[in-house]
Amino acid sequence: MKVCKFGGTSVASAEQIKKVAAIVQSDPSRKIVVVSAPGKRFSGDTKVTDLLIELGRASLAGERVEAPLEKVVQRYAQIAEELNLDPAVIRAIQTDLWNRLSADKSNQELYMDRIKASGEDNSAKLIAAYFAASGLQAKYVNPGDAGLIVNDLPKRAQALPEAYERLATLRNSEAVSVFPGFFGFTKNGTLRTFERGGSDITGSILAAAVKAELYENFTDVDCVFAANPHTVANPVEIEKMTYREMRELSYAGFAVFHDEALMPAFKESVPVCIKNTNHPAAPGTMIVKERDYSKRPVTGISADSGFSTLYVSKYLMNREIGFGRNLLQILEDEGISYEHIPSGIDNLSVIIRSHQLTPEKEARIVQRIQTEMHADDVHIRSDFSMVVLVGEGMNHTIGLAARAASAIARTGANIEMINQGSSEVSLVFGVLKHDETKILKELYQEFFEPALVK
Amino acid sequence: MKVCKFGGTSVASAEQIKKVAAIVQSDPSRKIVVVSAPGKRFSGDTKVTDLLIELGRASLAGERVEAPLEKVVQRYAQIAEELNLDPAVIRAIQTDLWNRLSADKSNQELYMDRIKASGEDNSAKLIAAYFAASGLQAKYVNPGDAGLIVNDLPKRAQALPEAYERLATLRNSEAVSVFPGFFGFTKNGTLRTFERGGSDITGSILAAAVKAELYENFTDVDCVFAANPHTVANPVEIEKMTYREMRELSYAGFAVFHDEALMPAFKESVPVCIKNTNHPAAPGTMIVKERDYSKRPVTGISADSGFSTLYVSKYLMNREIGFGRNLLQILEDEGISYEHIPSGIDNLSVIIRSHQLTPEKEARIVQRIQTEMHADDVHIRSDFSMVVLVGEGMNHTIGLAARAASAIARTGANIEMINQGSSEVSLVFGVLKHDETKILKELYQEFFEPALVK
Repeated sequence: MKVCKFGGTSVASAEQIKKVAAIVQSDPSRKIVVVSAPGKRFSGDTKVTDLLIELGRASLAGERVEAPLEKVVQRYAQIAEELNLDPAVIRAIQTDLWNRLSADKSNQELYMDRIKASGEDNSAKLIAAYFAASGLQAKYVNPGDAGLIVNDLPKRAQALPEAYERLATLRNSEAVSVFPGFFGFTKNGTLRTFERGGSDITGSILAAAVKAELYENFTDVDCVFAANPHTVANPVEIEKMTYREMRELSYAGFAVFHDEALMPAFKESVPVCIKNTNHPAAPGTMIVKERDYSKRPVTGISADSGFSTLYVSKYLMNREIGFGRNLLQILEDEGISYEHIPSGIDNLSVIIRSHQLTPEKEARIVQRIQTEMHADDVHIRSDFSMVVLVGEGMNHTIGLAARAASAIARTGANIEMINQGSSEVSLVFGVLKHDETKILKELYQEFFEPALVK
Repeated sequence: MKVCKFGGTSVASAEQIKKVAAIVQSDPSRKIVVVSAPGKRFSGDTKVTDLLIELGRASLAGERVEAPLEKVVQRYAQIAEELNLDPAVIRAIQTDLWNRLSADKSNQELYMDRIKASGEDNSAKLIAAYFAASGLQAKYVNPGDAGLIVNDLPKRAQALPEAYERLATLRNSEAVSVFPGFFGFTKNGTLRTFERGGSDITGSILAAAVKAELYENFTDVDCVFAANPHTVANPVEIEKMTYREMRELSYAGFAVFHDEALMPAFKESVPVCIKNTNHPAAPGTMIVKERDYSKRPVTGISADSGFSTLYVSKYLMNREIGFGRNLLQILEDEGISYEHIPSGIDNLSVIIRSHQLTPEKEARIVQRIQTEMHADDVHIRSDFSMVVLVGEGMNHTIGLAARAASAIARTGANIEMINQGSSEVSLVFGVLKHDETKILKELYQEFFEPALVK
């Protein structure tokens, strides 16, 4: 059986939901359908989730809620009308929203979570109703009833092991299960949401629980591209990549999936397919455990800006056991995670995502390294980009680093950092932000357009 | 004034000591002379230090000491005879050795230190006597009398700040000071040795204390070469390099200086010159604080084998604050220092000098990382070499990494690791040991023999 997840744009309108129904009907193995809240129908439209945030905020502020509530209900009502659904569906949604609004406000975060989660929940109810009306044997499944039990981490809930056991029984359902994404319940029945974009996580958990043959993730693109289409014109489509490649690509700007979303599917080795609701015939991009990588060494190239470098030098540093660990402890005390630690003999740099730093934190870090570690030189520089080449087995392709470094040299840009040696699937270059675009273009040219090389 | 240090081969025989005297006489600014114990006169010869270790070992074992003692005395006696020195010099050395042998044996380490240090001490007495006999105003200086006060670290003594103050008065001496290398005294008068090869350290301390214009380090080579002459035929001579370049080169096989030896000179910005006792007219290699590096980006290429890689992977590792620190803590618990930590997104490698590992330690480390850190994969691989390109400003030369990586690709070898980004003076490639020699040759060809490129 297959688990299909449909994102916000796939369920944004009646027209889109008809496509979803057609997709599910066309393949009897599509037995579990996870849905998001209705997203944007056009550029400038507002997502239902954002309408719900506005509604919850107004309610918590003691403002009148009729107008923001009507906006939410209207979105569902318009869909239901165009799908010729029984008006009872909309009355049920309205009642559900009033119930949530009148709930206990003592914990504002939990209150907001319940309001937000209604977006996916009511979307699932409406879509299940439409499936049934179109002659598909289908039913809405409540995550609490189905056993999606999560731990109590606010906004970053994680499914407990017993959740997988209980959800596995969805395999036995004759009807198509329509399951809302984004939330689960703790053991004592409190609703908890996953991170934003968490419908991907729900789909991944269900795919793992029922040991699906495939987890299809329907969105509004035909596939994942080998490079950012905003930078490179008509980039190559990625037919197949491994989980590891997906992870490395997502590091620097490829918003393919939420970081944690694939974890459950990955652990059960369920293959994932990124597909387009608007063009279901396109093969999409497969994400698998292993693939043959003999054809092309590089799968994709990504780039992201917003990195800073903390540089520390001290004569005879490499003789001091514990130097690196002490340094990382200072960063940890400031709650800062790091990306890479290139090191020389008497110096090292720590590559950090700049958003974690503030002028005060920087001053404290530099001060502590100077006074506690007696460093000769400490400074922080910002405005770096990381450009990442990703491909299974790439680092065992002789001459690949040379080709990449030569391509960068052709742009006239300097390489500030090279990191290769741990991952077998990536090669990371640190460059100045203002060089990022030209480097990405040149690397794409080098590895994906050999026929067009001047 | 200049501080001159003469190594073991420079004072191994009467013939050599005559060269030393001529060198000192030829430049009146050479006012402080630091000497080692007599070294090897020919391949297969035994250094006096090794004879002394044999003597001390025999004494501690309660064996008869006459024969090993005679071997030591004989070395000095032969030198003294060929230099036509008063036999009283040798009688004094003999008495000194008997005194040391009959000292308290309760601390075997200190006992051995005293015996070993006699090598340099008596060398200094003998050479001072010869200087005086040749008409040079010169005197032996005892490190204890001169104030070379050290801390109490066994075998790794370090000069205390007040030592520099007291030694500074050597500036005022009319006579040339002949100073034994390798040892100092703690505040309570205990003799403590520096690390082996520690005469370089003594010279460096004295150069810093008297704020010498130059610290001349006389050895048996004309200069430092840009690559290992055993691998590359007739490598280029390095005329001038910076302290940082020297440090980076010494990392991988360039036994130019003991790691810590240059620290005192470095801190006082005293330039250092490596010169040849057998060919003092050769300009030697200068080690300075800063140099112009516009002419040639790469100063030297070194390579060293004996590295291992500890590989750790865990899905979503980079989300765990503290992961790297915890890993380094486990290594620290085993007393292991590391060289580099290349990292991917969900994995990292720690490059370690293999001599620190044993099968037991490896098993414990792997076990702890698996159980305490819940890693997906942990393994250790050995037989890596590090090849290091060193040059000031090198990492700001556009295209340099590309040239280096291309040269390596030409050899057909794979690059296992690249580390660039912290040090501005080095670029480190991790390769398999069996590829090391061909890579070193090709890199030398690329950066030092452009005219000969095929």
